[in-house]
Amino acid sequence: MDILELDQVEPVVELSRIAVSSSHGEDSPYFAGWKAYDENPYDQFLNPSGVIQMGLAENQVSFDLVEDYLEKNSDTALFGNKASGFRENALFQDYHGLLSFRKAMATFMQQIRGGRVEFDPARIVLTAGATAANELLTFILANPGDALLVPTPYYPGFDRDLRWRTGINIVPIKTDSSNNFTITPEALQSAYDSAAASNFTVRGVLITNPSNPLGVAIEKTVLNEILDFVTKKNIHLISDEIYSGSVFSSSEFISVAEILKERNYKEKERVHIVYSLSKDLGLPGFRVGTIYSYNDKVVTTARRMSSFTLISSQTQHLLACMLSDKEFTENYIKTNRDRLRKRYDMIIDGLRKAGIECLEGNAGLFCWMNLGPYLNEPTKECELEIWKSIVSEVKLNISPGSSCHCSEPGWFRVCFANMTENTLEVALKRICDFMAKRVKKHNNHY
Amino acid sequence: MDILELDQVEPVVELSRIAVSSSHGEDSPYFAGWKAYDENPYDQFLNPSGVIQMGLAENQVSFDLVEDYLEKNSDTALFGNKASGFRENALFQDYHGLLSFRKAMATFMQQIRGGRVEFDPARIVLTAGATAANELLTFILANPGDALLVPTPYYPGFDRDLRWRTGINIVPIKTDSSNNFTITPEALQSAYDSAAASNFTVRGVLITNPSNPLGVAIEKTVLNEILDFVTKKNIHLISDEIYSGSVFSSSEFISVAEILKERNYKEKERVHIVYSLSKDLGLPGFRVGTIYSYNDKVVTTARRMSSFTLISSQTQHLLACMLSDKEFTENYIKTNRDRLRKRYDMIIDGLRKAGIECLEGNAGLFCWMNLGPYLNEPTKECELEIWKSIVSEVKLNISPGSSCHCSEPGWFRVCFANMTENTLEVALKRICDFMAKRVKKHNNHY
Repeated sequence: MDILELDQVEPVVELSRIAVSSSHGEDSPYFAGWKAYDENPYDQFLNPSGVIQMGLAENQVSFDLVEDYLEKNSDTALFGNKASGFRENALFQDYHGLLSFRKAMATFMQQIRGGRVEFDPARIVLTAGATAANELLTFILANPGDALLVPTPYYPGFDRDLRWRTGINIVPIKTDSSNNFTITPEALQSAYDSAAASNFTVRGVLITNPSNPLGVAIEKTVLNEILDFVTKKNIHLISDEIYSGSVFSSSEFISVAEILKERNYKEKERVHIVYSLSKDLGLPGFRVGTIYSYNDKVVTTARRMSSFTLISSQTQHLLACMLSDKEFTENYIKTNRDRLRKRYDMIIDGLRKAGIECLEGNAGLFCWMNLGPYLNEPTKECELEIWKSIVSEVKLNISPGSSCHCSEPGWFRVCFANMTENTLEVALKRICDFMAKRVKKHNNHY
Repeated sequence: MDILELDQVEPVVELSRIAVSSSHGEDSPYFAGWKAYDENPYDQFLNPSGVIQMGLAENQVSFDLVEDYLEKNSDTALFGNKASGFRENALFQDYHGLLSFRKAMATFMQQIRGGRVEFDPARIVLTAGATAANELLTFILANPGDALLVPTPYYPGFDRDLRWRTGINIVPIKTDSSNNFTITPEALQSAYDSAAASNFTVRGVLITNPSNPLGVAIEKTVLNEILDFVTKKNIHLISDEIYSGSVFSSSEFISVAEILKERNYKEKERVHIVYSLSKDLGLPGFRVGTIYSYNDKVVTTARRMSSFTLISSQTQHLLACMLSDKEFTENYIKTNRDRLRKRYDMIIDGLRKAGIECLEGNAGLFCWMNLGPYLNEPTKECELEIWKSIVSEVKLNISPGSSCHCSEPGWFRVCFANMTENTLEVALKRICDFMAKRVKKHNNHY
């Protein structure tokens, strides 16, 4: 058996509080939906009535470009047989990471931002995925019992990444549909006050730009207001920009790096950017995350701490080659944006035909779908009720907003880039049928 | 510049206690010696008077076998060009890890133990290196402020791995040359009492078998005594066996797994084994560590926690192929043992000619060298004085026993497997000359 069965009696030896706590958050519906998919996965031919996975923010739309590159460049990128490179790389475990790779990452991050800002490879710290990058920054910026303010709705994994082992608290900056889930100065202050009321020391604000699950890049005015806020409170700002290359148009995304440059901001050392190749390049299995910090002490400490989460040098070498190829990266970035926009248009259109509206998005691998009008009552319970129908009857795994700590019931994150167009069509057809039945039932009921 | 210069003034925003603490231990001579090497590395032709790195436990003696394998099997092992495997693997980020790889790891661990015990792939948790494996177990087994008992001398990196982010304490189980650094029941009890005197709750004993830095496998009687001790105290036992394949003869190493089997030990859930491919297979850059726990709850929790430290699926795939090839692994394990023994004999012989004795070893990539008789006084200061001469005059980076928390001054760890035989000869010649001069000076002095 692959998955271990828990059939042991109470252990004779105690485990730690972290081990027995549930703050890893894996008991949420977000992960429960994954299980439903794992047990009965859709396959066009072998299991056409199976569950379609729309709860996984994975980018498969541009994979052919990566495959083409590898086919053409297998000699340089995949060291191994002839030797020279292999020995050197297999032994390389310096926590600075391969300089060639850090340089390539810095250039790639710059390209994604339309060349409007530069990144210094010496400030890039490598980690095995953004999961580790976010935890690592939390360990460095906050003490157990302190708080980070995080806008809701947020990525469900943050409960694990930011809280579990660090012992910090996440205090929500609440947003809702009244202003398209925009972060306001009032919401920031209100979160801060609420942390103070709990006697938490607030150490920083963590934003995800573009937002997961909203699928929207944060606007410039809002970024400026957030920077004003962290300056006034003298706290840190973490900007998780792992979807920056998945904005449908380069001009619609503004990195916090650009704000710092434009304002000629003096206290840069409070600002830290997280990036990853899992989403924009579609390589989550390769476990490549980075921290870009403007704070020297954070860079030094994060590098030391990255000993716990280094990236395989084999993978660093491959990606250093790939990302150093400007022809490849330029074409990839542009094509990927175009294809994601096409997918987005396709799902929005399909949902609209089913009578469902989404928040207007411009980024990401998902849309933020509003089933609020179809809840019996505007409660979390009713949201989860409709979610259960969708998972078990419609056989679509989507993520309920409540698993993202959304303060307004009825919203769902629906992923569209981890499947073929054909599968997406099947999924849309299923939703359409479900809604038609539901509306009919609803009409009969009254 | 690669290394960032710290020229910033005091940061405006505070960092965490972990960030500003020095419990990462990187300020010890162990790491200082590395710097001396980095600044002036030996090269037979380009820099023949440079520093020879003997402070790095790296295995290069069997690298040609790995290279041969890759040359012959580049098609299966290095997916990428043609495609099929690549897409699937690049997306694979399940924290269970590739089943094929876990199976191959379980078999490899069994082979190293001469087939005397079996390992269940379902109990193997993958981490990016043993560094992460040891930290992860500590997070799971102990609360901040608790203690683990660790025999001294121990690997200097443990200060970082076990303490830094977890906030636990390491309490030394002191051993010395009077009984060849053997762990005794008295030393165990004395460490336990000392922890109690500091009001630390003792959560477990962590042994390294074979020992780094001693280069000796722990004897069966001693393993039984340790197991008796943790049973009596009802605490955990972590057995770090990352050098198990580097014992010069398979029969000289006994894993805690064999003891459990032989005794038909009932409370297995207190026992956890750490393994890695960095030493035995010489692949530290690939960052492959594992936890093998007999405790279901630890397995489940460690797997979840491994999200912070996953191994690149590209690397998992390559190694799954390589370790599944029994012809390769059988030949590798045998040849590697023979070559390490040859190297060991060579260094022991060379040191003896220089008038230096070592602890009799049977494992590892280093020997434990006694310069005690040559210290002016038996103090840590005198040990570091002679160490400084060796680094700066003899231009050899070796690790002083005090950086391994050895309780008896005058011992040094000297690595021999991270260089060519030729370089080792140069190093031995340098030591010989140094000792001759020193003895002469000493004789003149009196």
